[in-house]
Amino acid sequence: MEKKLSTESYKGTRDFYPEDMAIQRYIFETWAKTAELFGFERYDASILEPSELYKSKGAENEEMVREQTYTFIDRGDREVTLRPEMTPTVARMVAGKRRDLNFPVRWYSIPNLFRYERPQRGRLREHWQLNCDMFGVDDISADVEMIALAYNVLKAFGAKDSDFEIRINDRSWLNGIFGDFGLNQDQSKQMLTLLDRKEKITNFDEEAEKICGKPFILDLEEPENGSRLYDVCKGLQEIGIIKNLKVSASTVRGFNYYTSTVFEIFDTSPTNNRSLMGGGRYDNLTGLFGGDPISGMGFGLGDVTMRDFLETHNLLDGKVSITAPTLMVLPIDASQNIEAEKIAMAFRNAHIRTAVDLSDKKIGKKISHADEVGTSYILVVGADETVSQIFTLKTLATKSETKGTISELIASLT
Amino acid sequence: MEKKLSTESYKGTRDFYPEDMAIQRYIFETWAKTAELFGFERYDASILEPSELYKSKGAENEEMVREQTYTFIDRGDREVTLRPEMTPTVARMVAGKRRDLNFPVRWYSIPNLFRYERPQRGRLREHWQLNCDMFGVDDISADVEMIALAYNVLKAFGAKDSDFEIRINDRSWLNGIFGDFGLNQDQSKQMLTLLDRKEKITNFDEEAEKICGKPFILDLEEPENGSRLYDVCKGLQEIGIIKNLKVSASTVRGFNYYTSTVFEIFDTSPTNNRSLMGGGRYDNLTGLFGGDPISGMGFGLGDVTMRDFLETHNLLDGKVSITAPTLMVLPIDASQNIEAEKIAMAFRNAHIRTAVDLSDKKIGKKISHADEVGTSYILVVGADETVSQIFTLKTLATKSETKGTISELIASLT
Repeated sequence: MEKKLSTESYKGTRDFYPEDMAIQRYIFETWAKTAELFGFERYDASILEPSELYKSKGAENEEMVREQTYTFIDRGDREVTLRPEMTPTVARMVAGKRRDLNFPVRWYSIPNLFRYERPQRGRLREHWQLNCDMFGVDDISADVEMIALAYNVLKAFGAKDSDFEIRINDRSWLNGIFGDFGLNQDQSKQMLTLLDRKEKITNFDEEAEKICGKPFILDLEEPENGSRLYDVCKGLQEIGIIKNLKVSASTVRGFNYYTSTVFEIFDTSPTNNRSLMGGGRYDNLTGLFGGDPISGMGFGLGDVTMRDFLETHNLLDGKVSITAPTLMVLPIDASQNIEAEKIAMAFRNAHIRTAVDLSDKKIGKKISHADEVGTSYILVVGADETVSQIFTLKTLATKSETKGTISELIASLT
Repeated sequence: MEKKLSTESYKGTRDFYPEDMAIQRYIFETWAKTAELFGFERYDASILEPSELYKSKGAENEEMVREQTYTFIDRGDREVTLRPEMTPTVARMVAGKRRDLNFPVRWYSIPNLFRYERPQRGRLREHWQLNCDMFGVDDISADVEMIALAYNVLKAFGAKDSDFEIRINDRSWLNGIFGDFGLNQDQSKQMLTLLDRKEKITNFDEEAEKICGKPFILDLEEPENGSRLYDVCKGLQEIGIIKNLKVSASTVRGFNYYTSTVFEIFDTSPTNNRSLMGGGRYDNLTGLFGGDPISGMGFGLGDVTMRDFLETHNLLDGKVSITAPTLMVLPIDASQNIEAEKIAMAFRNAHIRTAVDLSDKKIGKKISHADEVGTSYILVVGADETVSQIFTLKTLATKSETKGTISELIASLT
C-alpha cells in the first residue's frame, strides 16, 4: 500500500483558502490604493536574487545570509538567495536604470519575503510586505511624505489616531550626541545596537555603562530647533500628523543602511503592543552598484502584523467576504446542465457574475445552497423552461420573481 | 577598492519596472475578472512545497524533481522544492479540506512557478500562470465550462475567434482505440508520449511502427456519436464555441495525471504558431492524500505566452499605461515643499491621486515634466499663494485655470 501524502503546507508557510485569500486581497488592494493616491508606481522582481546582493555590506551580512536566509548553489555554480527583504532589490533596479529614470522616483511593491528562522507569532518563514520607497530627494519633505504615507496606510483601513503611535528618531543626530558624550565611532555603533534592543532587555543602563565606560544619560525627548529631526517633526505637524507623533531615542531600526531619519509605528493596544512597521532614510544604498549616490527613504509593513493589527482593533468586521456570484443557474437535473451553461454564458457576456450548480444535489438543496452562499438571484432550468424558453429569475432577498426570455431577464438586471 | 555589484536580475528571471508591471497587472486583472465572471474563487499558497508532493507519482517524477526543479535540503533535513506547477498544490489543499468544502469547488490562482532549465523564448526560470480548476463534477458539462472559461479568457483581451484554435481530445478514447488496435498498456503509454511529440519530430510513422510492431494508422478526426469527446464537442457548440474548435488526435498534454478530456489552445498567427494554454480532466489527483477520489478538470496559461499572444495580435495597443497622478502640486522652490505636501494631503483626503514634485528642477521644468507624464492638473505653490491661500488649478489639456481656496478647488474636482 502506498504511503499517503500529507496535506500540510511546508513548515512556516500558509495556505490561502478563499476566505483567507479574500482578506489578503483586501489588505493588498488597500495598500496599493493608498500608495497610488500618493503617486507611487508599482514594480516587482523575482524572489530569486544573487546572494552577493545581501552579502556585500560586510562580514555581518555574510553571517546573516548563511544563518537566516534560504541560500543554495544552482547548477551553474551561482549562489542564489530567496529574497529576505526588498530594499536591496529596489536599490539594484534603481541603480540599473539611473540614467533613464525621472527623479524623484516613487515606487511601491508587495513582494513575498523569506526568512529561515523558527516560526513564531507574526514571524513566518514566508510573508508579504508593502514596500514604499522614494529616491532622489534629500530635502526633509521626502521624510515627511514617507511618514505621511505610512500613517495614511493605517488610516485607510479605518484606524483611529489613538490606535497607533509613530516613533521617530534621527541616527545622525544620535551619533552627534554620542560624539558630544565622548564616544568613538565603534562605541557609537555599539550604542545603536543596544538602543535597538532597549525595550527587550532589563539591564540597559548596566550594558550602556559597559560600552561607554561611564554612566550613560540620554535625554532626547525634545530635538533642538534647527536639527533635521526638529524640522521633520514640525513638517509632520504642519500637514496634520500631531496626536500620535513621538520622538523616541531608542528607535534606531535594525538595518545598518539607515543613515538619518528612522521611524517605527507601534500598535497602542495593550493586547498587541508591538511594532507594526518601520523605515528610514538611506543616503547611499545604490553606491554598491557604482555611480554617484542616490539618497532615498523607504518603509516596509508586513501582511501578518497588518492583519493582527486589523483584528486587534476590529477593523475587518463586515469589510471582507468572498464575493458570491450574482446569479446561480440551477439545472433541475444533469440533463439540463449544458442548457444551464448556455444560459449562464449569456449572462456572463452581459458582465453578470454567474455560476452553474453542476452538483447532483436535488433542486431544493441547490436553492438553499445558493441562499447560504449569498447569491442575489437564482434561475431554475428544467425541461419545460428549455422547451418554452421562458425562464423565471428569482431575487432571493425579496422572493420576488420576474418571468421572461433570457434577453428580457438580462435587460432587467443591467 | 570594492568590487561593484551587478544590477542584473538573477539568470532566467525578470525585473518588472513600472511599464512592464502595468502590463503584468492588466493581464492578471483581466484573468481574475474573467475567472470571477464564472464564479471562481481565488486561492494561493507558498512557493515552497515539500518535494515529496512532486515525487510521489513514481520514478519518472523523481527524475523530473531532480533534473528540472529548484530543490534543496533545509536545515531541518526536509527536502523542499520551489513549485514547478500549481496542480499538486491545489490537489493538496482540496484534499486537506475535503470535508468542509462545498462541491463543485471552482478555484483559481495566479502563482509564480519555477523551472530549472535553460532560459529560452517564453520559457523562463520563473513565470506566472493563471490556474483554474473545478473539482467534484464528473459530468461533461464541467469539461464544457472549463474550456468555455479558457476561451473567454482570450476573448476578454479582445481576441477574435480567428486568432486561436482550440484542439481537443480524450485520452480514454484514445486508449480505447489503442486497445482495439491490439496495443497493450505499455505500448499505449508509449504511443501517448510519442503523440505528444508528433509536431516536433519528422519520423513519427517510423517511431510509431517501432512501438506497435506494425504500421500505425490513426484516423480520429470525427469522434463517434455517444462518446464523451463527441458530447463535449457538442456541448461546446451548443454554448456557442464553434468556429475554432478542432478534434486533434495528437493533443495529449505532457502531464500524466490527465485521464480523459485534454485540450490545448494554439495561436493561429504564422509568426507565433505555438501552444498558448492547455489542460484536462484528472479523475484522481487527490487520491495520493487518501480518501475517495475527487475528479477535477483544470488548465493553466502562462504570463509570457499570454503577453506574446497579445503583442502578436496587437491587443495591448492603447490599453495599458502607467497611470499618472491626477494632480501634480509644484512648489516654486524647496521652501514651499511642506506647504505643497499639506495641500496634496487635502486632495488625497478627497481621494484625488496627487503627487508633489519635490525635485530641485526650476518651476518651468516641473510644469513641462507634469505635462509629459500625463498629469491632468497642476497647482503651483509659491510664497504669494502661501500667504493669500488662494491657488490656481490648471487643466493641462485645455490650459483653462480655476482660482480659489483649496477647499473650493477640491470641490471643483469632485
